[in-house]
Amino acid sequence: MSKPKVFEKPTGVKDYLPHAVAKLRRIERNVLECMRRWGYEQIMTPTMEYYDTVGVASATSDQKLFKLLNQRGTTIVLRSEMTSPIARVVSSLLKETPFPLRLSYHANVFRAFEEEAGRDAEFFQTGVELVGDPSSEADAEVIALAIASLQAAGVPSFKIAVGHVGFLNGLFQEALLGRTEEQENLKSHLLQRDHVGYRDALKKLSIEDSVRGELEGILRLRGGVEVCDQALSLSGSPDAQAAIRQLCEVWEVLTAYGLQDHVLIDLTMIGDFSYYTGMTFEGYASHLGFPVCSGGRYDNLLAQFGRPAAATGFALKTTRILEVVGDDEADENRILIVYTKESRREALLEAERIREEGLVAVTEKEDVLKDVLPGLRAEAAKGPFVHRGMAFDRLVVYGLEKEGRA
Amino acid sequence: MSKPKVFEKPTGVKDYLPHAVAKLRRIERNVLECMRRWGYEQIMTPTMEYYDTVGVASATSDQKLFKLLNQRGTTIVLRSEMTSPIARVVSSLLKETPFPLRLSYHANVFRAFEEEAGRDAEFFQTGVELVGDPSSEADAEVIALAIASLQAAGVPSFKIAVGHVGFLNGLFQEALLGRTEEQENLKSHLLQRDHVGYRDALKKLSIEDSVRGELEGILRLRGGVEVCDQALSLSGSPDAQAAIRQLCEVWEVLTAYGLQDHVLIDLTMIGDFSYYTGMTFEGYASHLGFPVCSGGRYDNLLAQFGRPAAATGFALKTTRILEVVGDDEADENRILIVYTKESRREALLEAERIREEGLVAVTEKEDVLKDVLPGLRAEAAKGPFVHRGMAFDRLVVYGLEKEGRA
Repeated sequence: MSKPKVFEKPTGVKDYLPHAVAKLRRIERNVLECMRRWGYEQIMTPTMEYYDTVGVASATSDQKLFKLLNQRGTTIVLRSEMTSPIARVVSSLLKETPFPLRLSYHANVFRAFEEEAGRDAEFFQTGVELVGDPSSEADAEVIALAIASLQAAGVPSFKIAVGHVGFLNGLFQEALLGRTEEQENLKSHLLQRDHVGYRDALKKLSIEDSVRGELEGILRLRGGVEVCDQALSLSGSPDAQAAIRQLCEVWEVLTAYGLQDHVLIDLTMIGDFSYYTGMTFEGYASHLGFPVCSGGRYDNLLAQFGRPAAATGFALKTTRILEVVGDDEADENRILIVYTKESRREALLEAERIREEGLVAVTEKEDVLKDVLPGLRAEAAKGPFVHRGMAFDRLVVYGLEKEGRA
Repeated sequence: MSKPKVFEKPTGVKDYLPHAVAKLRRIERNVLECMRRWGYEQIMTPTMEYYDTVGVASATSDQKLFKLLNQRGTTIVLRSEMTSPIARVVSSLLKETPFPLRLSYHANVFRAFEEEAGRDAEFFQTGVELVGDPSSEADAEVIALAIASLQAAGVPSFKIAVGHVGFLNGLFQEALLGRTEEQENLKSHLLQRDHVGYRDALKKLSIEDSVRGELEGILRLRGGVEVCDQALSLSGSPDAQAAIRQLCEVWEVLTAYGLQDHVLIDLTMIGDFSYYTGMTFEGYASHLGFPVCSGGRYDNLLAQFGRPAAATGFALKTTRILEVVGDDEADENRILIVYTKESRREALLEAERIREEGLVAVTEKEDVLKDVLPGLRAEAAKGPFVHRGMAFDRLVVYGLEKEGRA
């Protein structure tokens, strides 16, 4: 194979220039601050984890895990999400800390290189885990915090769709008992939100027409709390009914938060079934074809790390959110200080004073820019100016004349 | 080989619990803010880079690079430092931006697993690069900024040792022309600061006694600006003399910054010779056996990425600095709100109000902690209390009695 060119970087990874970094950092800061106010404390875990522990437990499908071998021949993964690493920490370093635990994070996560255009191999997530609280209050709390976090991030307009894996599971179990492959096929259509494909697949199934009607009916189960009533009448499955009753409770708490206008119930929504065990949700911003956050209840994960516990949480898709939030005002207030050798001490002291005020001071010796200086002065006299690619508000010149300043 | 236990993580990597994260985040924030005020703009680059580009160009020795193969069979490295990735960006995305470029970063970097105890496979660095300015003013600026950054990080007491690779190179070339192996042997003793070993190696060399005296004399070349005069008289090598004259200029600018008390000249200091091309420096904190920052001039690196340019910079060893700075005051001001189902709306509104003030509010439904509540109230009546491992300042109870609050 040919060597990469010197300026190239691997497929699917990004450089962030100052403008983008400022925006990303602002989102990170505001969202973590929001989570702090809700009592969530930040933790950090390593980029690398053992495949056999965190890798296997994670919700990421095996072929999307970024794997490597260490020098001992043990398989390592670059973390693909933060929920499993946090479950490991909750079960080890924090094993004496009583539940519920409220933890937050901002981290880069990795997916194995995908050659399709636009797929990221490395991206940022900002999220929380609420561990050790099985209640609907806890589920509603993380949904409410997801809404507050998206607002803190500056996402202008969004809706949270809430569902429950127990409803579809119960419904499919009842209608298609033992027909796992057909169940999986239907679910995969729902996962891709391919309703046409779902209907086609239904038509091909040899089932009674009443059951077909029931399974087709779920496509209409999207809306306000009235959807819960429709769902209860649609299926007699005890599992499905229990799921709907839980969802009603979560909705009730969300109403107490005053958030009912931000939320809709969507019983066709399907998270990762192998991972989530209860309520699941996704956030959609206007004009964006992909979710800006996702989360749900995962009551089986912690047991894999030896400390069984109920848990619920979410992650903002921070890299994607970058695309929908506005730019920074970027009112930097920068001052360029130009000085002669003789006035160096005076000029550097002035720079120190300016920096102590929280403004930006850049210093430059005048012999470096002799020819440029007259033009610079003329420009600076008129107002903000650009010098060597950087925007400045003011020019101060030391040592070139008695008055000492331009 | 046996599988790792579920709670284990790979050798040499760390989890940071909330207390440590708060400290690390404070250092990161304060140092980046300091750098911003000096006109340095933050950039981010990917965790993964091509071995043949950034890996080969980096100052990290080959066996310490963390390598992996991607699906196309190309060798990838986990970045081992940030200078080479930034050189790549300066030569590609920023190639139209005029020099000098002032860039800052805070990033985790990786070294291949080392089985020796205490070696980190992943750690944080916070630093700057000043690209496109060959002057002594630029070298002094990055040293001055390193000092300001260590102060911003909260390192209580430190010294910066400044040297110049040209001095030792010139001296050794003159004294041991063509005897590369013997030169490398002497340099490796200096690199490990093993002065006894250096003297022993000198004794075994077949060289004239005057030359031996000269080479032994460099061990005394540590101190204030007077060291420059001593060094000038020690060696007649033009390269060594030119290096000393440059160092004198840097010292002069540092004096204008008023920083001479933070700096000492150390001509025995030796950075990575294959990488640095001029001034080099290291920062030492009291009571710590390892440097807390290092940097220097590297005028040859940029050419490897196709945009030849002088450059100088430094990196704080942020993970190590964590060990020497004081704890956060951690005055969180947390309020625990307990409520009944009937008072839910009122309680959640109060939580919202508290969070809007910037304080922390944690909510809990009273039926979850019924038995614990009387004890909690008694404790809270006395002052700050701990509940489920979290420290609170105040308890507010809704819905259990007329007055509504405890």
